[in-house]
Amino acid sequence: MCQLLGMNCNVPTDICFSFEGFATRGGKTDDHKDGWGIAFFEGKGCRIFLDAKPSIASPIADLVRGYPIHSTHVIAHIRKATQGEIALLNCHPFQRELWGRYWVFAHNGDLRDFSPQSQKFYQAVGNTDSENAFCFILERLRQYFPDRKPPLKELYSVIKDTTKTLADKGIFNYLLSDGEHFFAHCSTKLCYIVRQAPFAAAHLIDQDMTVDFRELTTKSDRVAVIATTPLTDNEVWTQISPGELLVFQDGVPLNL
Amino acid sequence: MCQLLGMNCNVPTDICFSFEGFATRGGKTDDHKDGWGIAFFEGKGCRIFLDAKPSIASPIADLVRGYPIHSTHVIAHIRKATQGEIALLNCHPFQRELWGRYWVFAHNGDLRDFSPQSQKFYQAVGNTDSENAFCFILERLRQYFPDRKPPLKELYSVIKDTTKTLADKGIFNYLLSDGEHFFAHCSTKLCYIVRQAPFAAAHLIDQDMTVDFRELTTKSDRVAVIATTPLTDNEVWTQISPGELLVFQDGVPLNL
Repeated sequence: MCQLLGMNCNVPTDICFSFEGFATRGGKTDDHKDGWGIAFFEGKGCRIFLDAKPSIASPIADLVRGYPIHSTHVIAHIRKATQGEIALLNCHPFQRELWGRYWVFAHNGDLRDFSPQSQKFYQAVGNTDSENAFCFILERLRQYFPDRKPPLKELYSVIKDTTKTLADKGIFNYLLSDGEHFFAHCSTKLCYIVRQAPFAAAHLIDQDMTVDFRELTTKSDRVAVIATTPLTDNEVWTQISPGELLVFQDGVPLNL
Repeated sequence: MCQLLGMNCNVPTDICFSFEGFATRGGKTDDHKDGWGIAFFEGKGCRIFLDAKPSIASPIADLVRGYPIHSTHVIAHIRKATQGEIALLNCHPFQRELWGRYWVFAHNGDLRDFSPQSQKFYQAVGNTDSENAFCFILERLRQYFPDRKPPLKELYSVIKDTTKTLADKGIFNYLLSDGEHFFAHCSTKLCYIVRQAPFAAAHLIDQDMTVDFRELTTKSDRVAVIATTPLTDNEVWTQISPGELLVFQDGVPLNL
């Protein structure tokens, strides 16, 4: 199994504080040490840092910790391998292009009963259930909407149906984004928090570190952080219900 | 215009020395300061570092300079924008998946007369002639070989023809790889060197730095470095002829 971390905001924000706690779980406070990765959208552009080393021992994770990259859509993952060997090609998040946009995906779980068929458009490069599931979702979207991204309600409906098909095969918590919309699916374990004015201080669970968001924010800022388990011990995190697929935009889950 | 740097080897090798000289051209010894990027294959896996900042002022370039990532196929690019704004989404190298492999592409030149048509499989995310040309090549390959990667001779033939079509539209020096084969096309300016036993010392042009490869190599190592212009001043670089498309494997250009 693995752990997920996501962030969606209304203004580009750095994820250094959350990543600090999260990365600690990659071999120090927890045993998700079979690689890690993080994707940052900047508009339609996207950059992904990947490493097959544990996040606590990775020079690239040190860079991400120390270099504040501002983004509105971030997806991070620390891996504890269930399917697929420990190697760069099996590190999440995975990326593909659809409708002239990059799509990025990371998964926590295990789809034991999923036997991926050969797809027409998208093939997995590695050998994880996760990358195959991602390809399966994008394939479906292309079949339904060959030419362009549909309105959100139609998009949501197909992703929801496809997710249900896959979630029936095992455990399927995931984060998915194209830099415009941010999907978060809970199969067994996923929670979130929305930080907005009035801001307060937050304290990490995984190490003794506090940030006072009052000093770093403006009144109109809004940031949603989504994670497998809460990252802070003095804030109230909302558990997403099993089977629920949320869509975040501008730092808040939409009512669909 | 931009500059290209590539490396292809028979054993995983770090590119720190060549990148040191190359990155200096991103704003110090030359004016290619509109972003940069570098892709490293590890088997079928691939990781790309991108930044819209000049390579001489990028913390991510500092990481790449200081952290020896060992790879057999590397493609790097420093950008001087001709088409498309300075932004992450227009930084090379670009990446797509074809036949269950990642393909990576970087371009030096300007395809002024190229009007990209909408493609069936691959769409550009940014707005450079380069990314559109890459999508055009992959689209052709998919049309010719829908199911799997063909033998090299057939693959080469289609890439060669498609390259000619594009090179007729402007300047089209490029590097292209899927982690197995490494294509280098010269339209106006591209050269390479093959380093193998007996190894010697090499001295950079762009800064006063020497590496003695005798201390770092074994007898069987072989490394090809491909670049827009030579990176060292005490070695003999081979100019690739305009119109020539080379394929490197295990550190040497193949006879096709």
